[in-house]
Amino acid sequence: MPTFTALQLIDLTARLFEAAGAPPAVARQVGASLVEANLTGHESHGVIRAVQYVRAIERGQINPRAELEVLRETPTTALLDAHWGFGQIAARRGMELAIAKARQHHLAAVGLRNSAHIGRLGEYVLMAAEQGLIGFMTCNSSLLVAPHGGVDRVFGTNPVAFAIPGGRQPFLTDFATSACAEGKLRVAQARDRSVPAGWILDRDRRPTTNPSDFYDGGVILPLGGHKGYGLLLMADLLGGALTGHGCTALPEHTSGNGVFMMAIDVEAFCPLAELASAIDRLFEHIKAGNRAPDCEEILIPGEPEMRSKAQRERDGIELPETTWRELVEAARQFGLREGLDHAAMT
Amino acid sequence: MPTFTALQLIDLTARLFEAAGAPPAVARQVGASLVEANLTGHESHGVIRAVQYVRAIERGQINPRAELEVLRETPTTALLDAHWGFGQIAARRGMELAIAKARQHHLAAVGLRNSAHIGRLGEYVLMAAEQGLIGFMTCNSSLLVAPHGGVDRVFGTNPVAFAIPGGRQPFLTDFATSACAEGKLRVAQARDRSVPAGWILDRDRRPTTNPSDFYDGGVILPLGGHKGYGLLLMADLLGGALTGHGCTALPEHTSGNGVFMMAIDVEAFCPLAELASAIDRLFEHIKAGNRAPDCEEILIPGEPEMRSKAQRERDGIELPETTWRELVEAARQFGLREGLDHAAMT
Repeated sequence: MPTFTALQLIDLTARLFEAAGAPPAVARQVGASLVEANLTGHESHGVIRAVQYVRAIERGQINPRAELEVLRETPTTALLDAHWGFGQIAARRGMELAIAKARQHHLAAVGLRNSAHIGRLGEYVLMAAEQGLIGFMTCNSSLLVAPHGGVDRVFGTNPVAFAIPGGRQPFLTDFATSACAEGKLRVAQARDRSVPAGWILDRDRRPTTNPSDFYDGGVILPLGGHKGYGLLLMADLLGGALTGHGCTALPEHTSGNGVFMMAIDVEAFCPLAELASAIDRLFEHIKAGNRAPDCEEILIPGEPEMRSKAQRERDGIELPETTWRELVEAARQFGLREGLDHAAMT
Repeated sequence: MPTFTALQLIDLTARLFEAAGAPPAVARQVGASLVEANLTGHESHGVIRAVQYVRAIERGQINPRAELEVLRETPTTALLDAHWGFGQIAARRGMELAIAKARQHHLAAVGLRNSAHIGRLGEYVLMAAEQGLIGFMTCNSSLLVAPHGGVDRVFGTNPVAFAIPGGRQPFLTDFATSACAEGKLRVAQARDRSVPAGWILDRDRRPTTNPSDFYDGGVILPLGGHKGYGLLLMADLLGGALTGHGCTALPEHTSGNGVFMMAIDVEAFCPLAELASAIDRLFEHIKAGNRAPDCEEILIPGEPEMRSKAQRERDGIELPETTWRELVEAARQFGLREGLDHAAMT
């Protein structure tokens, strides 16, 4: 597979978004967010999305020059309307606002409506943790997942993400509240592999382990039955109902993500150094524990992402040939030429 | 099984706690919280705990006359020390404080350390929802659950609970972030039933479906692998590390629950009536959907509890003969006589 540096991919995607109408700073930030997903090992939220975003701009679903509007604001809360700008821009601005408010008032919550796809939530909650705050975030998304006991698509895969600043490493968890993320089905399908029982039903609402059955009119199940169902609904109500973005299954929902995020000031409760010490000791204890036979190493949530990032910053980011070709074709469409020869870049 | 009204059980447990040293108002509230768990169908957190609590008082693990202390406070946050008072009292006081602060500042977070067992979290987050606020709560607990990939007991079953005020009914989710609550293993063992694969490992760290293997030195697994692991750690860090109660696996943790709770003012984001309308329409849509073959009715999270409560308020609460006998014996130990004849009460 062709291999690129992060900077090369940020440059290329930024030029693409700029050519499609985005201001330079916006184009560069969206590119950087996509590449951050590639670096952390989440290809499904990486530069593979760039051409989708360009097509969404062409269809009028993303407005690359949208201005974020503050609809309601108090010292501790804000409701933002992204007016269908890039989700990465709106989500970062939302988390920046939450961080600023939490610095002043110890706690802040920001809702975001009419946002295009925000990508990987882990990026935004880590912004809080990097500044010594706890970050929380959830959002709804498009119709893919059944309620517990049901078989119709009612929810998105509605992720929740949570980051806590630590000592040697922060804690980061970021996952779909459905049994699986849709991206995992796509990967299994591409590799012709089956998926675990309990992830999906086929179009006739029978359990199946063939990922193609999902794309043929099937449905994803909630994580752990009624538990994931509770989280799916929580995300839909906070991200969709509270913000006015719309719950996924209701007519007012069109596309994109309705988002809810919070920042919490650690030092309102305890000195950061004390929290860091407890976290370091707990992580050490966990990692030194006995392992299951199929487990090579017990990892802390967020550790796989940090390791992937360190490795790919060093060795580069591999892209499937098809992803690269799509990017190049889109770039050529906009008359871009320079830097489209990956042989020269590897 | 002998059957009682809620009032009869509140009276009896309150008299028991009062005899063990609790002030009358405290005794009555703890009794009411336990009976609320019975009413909502969560026997494992109900009056079956009353005798345990009395024994904990006798051992000095619960101080029934403890005064809650505010260790740190800002307009939006507070850190409370329960000084090993009843968890039900401390958790209610904590949530009342969060609600009062959120009414003024739209958002509030309260941490609680050195609290004895707080019981069923759903009760406290519903306090927020009943007043038009969103309630969130999590806590750590005693050593029962392995990290993802590990086989040692490192976490409690660390519940998370979330309530959102609705129109016709509130949304309430409240669940253990382990594959199962410990109570479910106890029930399966008592009924000589096996449990689903993926819930527990035996003492030799092999997968098993025999619940007795857990009590013979086994371990409970996280809900959905790395996802539940993320939630377990979140609960342990918020409830244990941030509050100073202690993370379950660290030496500073002795017993009880380290608790973190939040209240969020809906109207900082949208009028309550608008949220209620969206929620009503979404719940209607979900309930009208197609069902899986083994599902008689699609329920909304919180609905099973509300139905159980309505039924038991009407028909009474059934108690296993052993639970009743334990209560009566403890009451007699304190010289209580009146109202100990369940034949007269049914």
